[in-house]
Amino acid sequence: MKRKKLRVVMAGFGNVGQKMAAMLTGERDRYPGLAGLELEPVAIVTGRHGGLVDPKGIDLGRALAQYREQGGFPAAPMTALQALETLDYDALVEISTLDIAGRGGLAMAHVRAALERGRHVATANKGPAAFAYAELAALARKKNVRFLFESAVMDGTPIFCLGRALRGLNVTGISGIFNTTTNFVLSRLEAGESMASAVKTAQQLGFAEADPANDLEGWDSSAKVSVLANFFMDAGIDPLRVDRRGITGVTADDVARARAAGRRIKLVCRAWRENGRVRAEVKPREVEAGHYFSAVNGRAAALRLEFDMLGPLWLLEENPDLMDTASGVLQDLLAIASES
Amino acid sequence: MKRKKLRVVMAGFGNVGQKMAAMLTGERDRYPGLAGLELEPVAIVTGRHGGLVDPKGIDLGRALAQYREQGGFPAAPMTALQALETLDYDALVEISTLDIAGRGGLAMAHVRAALERGRHVATANKGPAAFAYAELAALARKKNVRFLFESAVMDGTPIFCLGRALRGLNVTGISGIFNTTTNFVLSRLEAGESMASAVKTAQQLGFAEADPANDLEGWDSSAKVSVLANFFMDAGIDPLRVDRRGITGVTADDVARARAAGRRIKLVCRAWRENGRVRAEVKPREVEAGHYFSAVNGRAAALRLEFDMLGPLWLLEENPDLMDTASGVLQDLLAIASES
Repeated sequence: MKRKKLRVVMAGFGNVGQKMAAMLTGERDRYPGLAGLELEPVAIVTGRHGGLVDPKGIDLGRALAQYREQGGFPAAPMTALQALETLDYDALVEISTLDIAGRGGLAMAHVRAALERGRHVATANKGPAAFAYAELAALARKKNVRFLFESAVMDGTPIFCLGRALRGLNVTGISGIFNTTTNFVLSRLEAGESMASAVKTAQQLGFAEADPANDLEGWDSSAKVSVLANFFMDAGIDPLRVDRRGITGVTADDVARARAAGRRIKLVCRAWRENGRVRAEVKPREVEAGHYFSAVNGRAAALRLEFDMLGPLWLLEENPDLMDTASGVLQDLLAIASES
Repeated sequence: MKRKKLRVVMAGFGNVGQKMAAMLTGERDRYPGLAGLELEPVAIVTGRHGGLVDPKGIDLGRALAQYREQGGFPAAPMTALQALETLDYDALVEISTLDIAGRGGLAMAHVRAALERGRHVATANKGPAAFAYAELAALARKKNVRFLFESAVMDGTPIFCLGRALRGLNVTGISGIFNTTTNFVLSRLEAGESMASAVKTAQQLGFAEADPANDLEGWDSSAKVSVLANFFMDAGIDPLRVDRRGITGVTADDVARARAAGRRIKLVCRAWRENGRVRAEVKPREVEAGHYFSAVNGRAAALRLEFDMLGPLWLLEENPDLMDTASGVLQDLLAIASES
């Protein structure tokens, strides 16, 4: 098969970026669906680990080897934003981390810059769609390019791919469990561990960030339910307007009491229409045994969509890892490559 | 919104057809997604309840009222096949019931006739895709029309819609619980009822057909896993080649023994690749508590897809009714209308 070459600017080259690079080079044979795709970065710029810029194209495999050998790239000759504003490329691959305090932060600036120049965007960063979906989707439409973010919620689970393909169905309500760290910590509380110890275990196993507040206080979940509500329900909300309570106030006693009644406590996200507006919340809730939410364990996640012309539909993922997140970005890039 | 008018031949006008007609007429306001669609039958021909034929177009609302008042239509002036071969129309709506013994039976002939004449097909009947997916899909491609069957598995759950939209992902395995009657009967066995009594209850509640053998012996499940394996895995199988065991041999003792060990018995469908071929089976299996299969109750259904470039994805429906099945056909017709 002839490969479609996409020239990209990559903003970020952390775990997801490195996994993408591996899947497109050394691991390529495992993924026949990637056969038609070639990614040629003209810039790979990270936040704190330098960057590479070469308008003639960077070999992705060699860049990956260099990054791994040296623990990063040399100092970058320009910022990602400068690269996006000055170089020639087909698509932005935005894989930096979420910045809630900065309302999407640099990722937002990157996405805007790319779309303004009529370039496609594939982003695993939740910020842009969480804080400014309507604006960015309209800009992409105006410029006739794609603004895709499959990995923003439930890793590579093809939620938005499905949403774009649906015919005649309007989403009237959303609920779900989307955050791994809180799900894991709540399970450990059920097993009798203390909150502090459970969080430490999550960090040791690599589930939780060094600063777990984004997860425990429900910010990650708020960002995800915002993306979903904006995409599926034209909500026009953002994470700061989600009625949010994390799990930091949940005690081992709460969990034990629920358990004794045959229930489990989960950090549940919801979005619904009320008086003509969309409201969203993130709250610890008791869920019944035998309910699908109750079977969401470990790194699993669950999304329930309600429709006008169809009964509720559940999408669940089992035990995602880095490959799933990288897969989501690659699915987006394949969609872009098929059109450009 | 200007309505797109689709001229259709409807083969069958049972519960699903009547619900579709109601949704497109009296209930139309509840479903804004249907605003752009108008269905104008040139023929509605049933198996045993007569039919209407009018090349100038039949008013769907009036036909529904007539059918309900008179318990059917007058004797049809031609068969559905004759209508498909001689009248002018845009799409076949095939909503007759599954005929396993006849390898798809009349429905197969209807679909072939429509596709041969370059007309679109939307079918809720599992037979054509279960017995001849590869042939019919190839014919549809050659004639540049759509062959759609969203309601064939899990009612209107947008399984095939999702499948067509996926990028880069190859399905490597399928499993699921797809049959309502067996699921219901197994639950009643768990509650202590006998098989005979449970089947009778299912019939009284309208879950099971007067002749429940298609469900209990696993034929319905075999047809559904065939459709899925043919569509997602190019299996080229049919229901007669599925390794099939229904639930007629399951006893109250089996169910109680499983229950005591914290497990439930479910009629589970599977398809997988083995030595370069796709194999499929339908078997009663014990599933663990806390597994999503274990939470599939009543009319619910579950599909688990395994991929090469993504972890397993679950699609679940909760408690579908006629609206969901009708919705699947209408989703197909909206897809057809958007292209024709």
